[in-house]
Amino acid sequence: MASPTRRGRRPGSPDTRAAILAEARTLFAAQGYAGTSVRGVATAAGVDAALVHHYFGTKDDLFLAALELPIDPRVALAPAIAAGPDGAGERMLRVFLSVWDDPQLQLPLLGVFRGVVDPDGQRLLRDGFLPAVLGPVGVALGLDRPELRMPLLASQVLGLILVRYVLAVEPVASMTADEVVAIYAPTLQRYLTGPLA
Amino acid sequence: MASPTRRGRRPGSPDTRAAILAEARTLFAAQGYAGTSVRGVATAAGVDAALVHHYFGTKDDLFLAALELPIDPRVALAPAIAAGPDGAGERMLRVFLSVWDDPQLQLPLLGVFRGVVDPDGQRLLRDGFLPAVLGPVGVALGLDRPELRMPLLASQVLGLILVRYVLAVEPVASMTADEVVAIYAPTLQRYLTGPLA
Repeated sequence: MASPTRRGRRPGSPDTRAAILAEARTLFAAQGYAGTSVRGVATAAGVDAALVHHYFGTKDDLFLAALELPIDPRVALAPAIAAGPDGAGERMLRVFLSVWDDPQLQLPLLGVFRGVVDPDGQRLLRDGFLPAVLGPVGVALGLDRPELRMPLLASQVLGLILVRYVLAVEPVASMTADEVVAIYAPTLQRYLTGPLA
Repeated sequence: MASPTRRGRRPGSPDTRAAILAEARTLFAAQGYAGTSVRGVATAAGVDAALVHHYFGTKDDLFLAALELPIDPRVALAPAIAAGPDGAGERMLRVFLSVWDDPQLQLPLLGVFRGVVDPDGQRLLRDGFLPAVLGPVGVALGLDRPELRMPLLASQVLGLILVRYVLAVEPVASMTADEVVAIYAPTLQRYLTGPLA
């Protein structure tokens, strides 16, 4: 941590954490999740890789910090996943609704969602959020073909976000969580564990 | 058509059509589909309402012209709808894929889709596209609760657009039309005619 810093920034100074996060955002957006390393972020920020790990943990943790989500989706989804694949569609959907229906969480989430029309934001979602968050969910659930099933799940969840929260199309926007679950949980469960062809 | 024009624009001059379209875009975006009338567009453009009808047809036609879609979705979907509700999910999906998989049509459609993050674009989609295009489809198919079922269909179609075309998430982005149909047609058909609770 006493290694020479490229920009003369003092490790551990108050702005070091913010500088690391800014470089992480830039690199993840420019190079995608797979093309970005903790070492590369450390070099760009002029600090030692150990300091990045100290502040942010793993590369996945750093990536999620860079996304600035108001919650850690891995923590929120853990109980829904631990109960196994049966009914996981409904359990994950209920977690999702409890987060998105909370006005204080919805606002920053809508900000992240706006990234879908921006090339950098698209890369973060496609090359970062899916492999860092959705991929491990599919594996933890023990799905066959998780690399196909999780993007299918994402396609209906993203469409629901668009109609219920972004466009606020009635009657979907005003449905209770139970009504949304009755309609969408069967779709999500089929994408997770049902026949696809 | 020889009525006095508010801005002195000559009816029938080469720029009159463009001026009407520009005013239509502004008014539909600011006031929504329901809040905009052909007469209001005519007044804003300084022409007679009959000239607006002459150039653009009905209010729905004017609205779709203002959206600048590369095709008329009502014309494209007509055969899929005429065959009735059974199998309409698959038939509408095949029309949708034939349009979106065409690179020349996809580019302008992606431009329209970018409107989902813009308040004006959101209003056009929610208050215009749904009532002008999707609403009549649900009625023509004779669905029960078309006002619920068409937004559900839209939620999966929009999510598919996001994953396949906007984010280009694999393997969905590279699937053949038949593979997409095998996965998504059952979802769309359930939203159109299946049990929802």
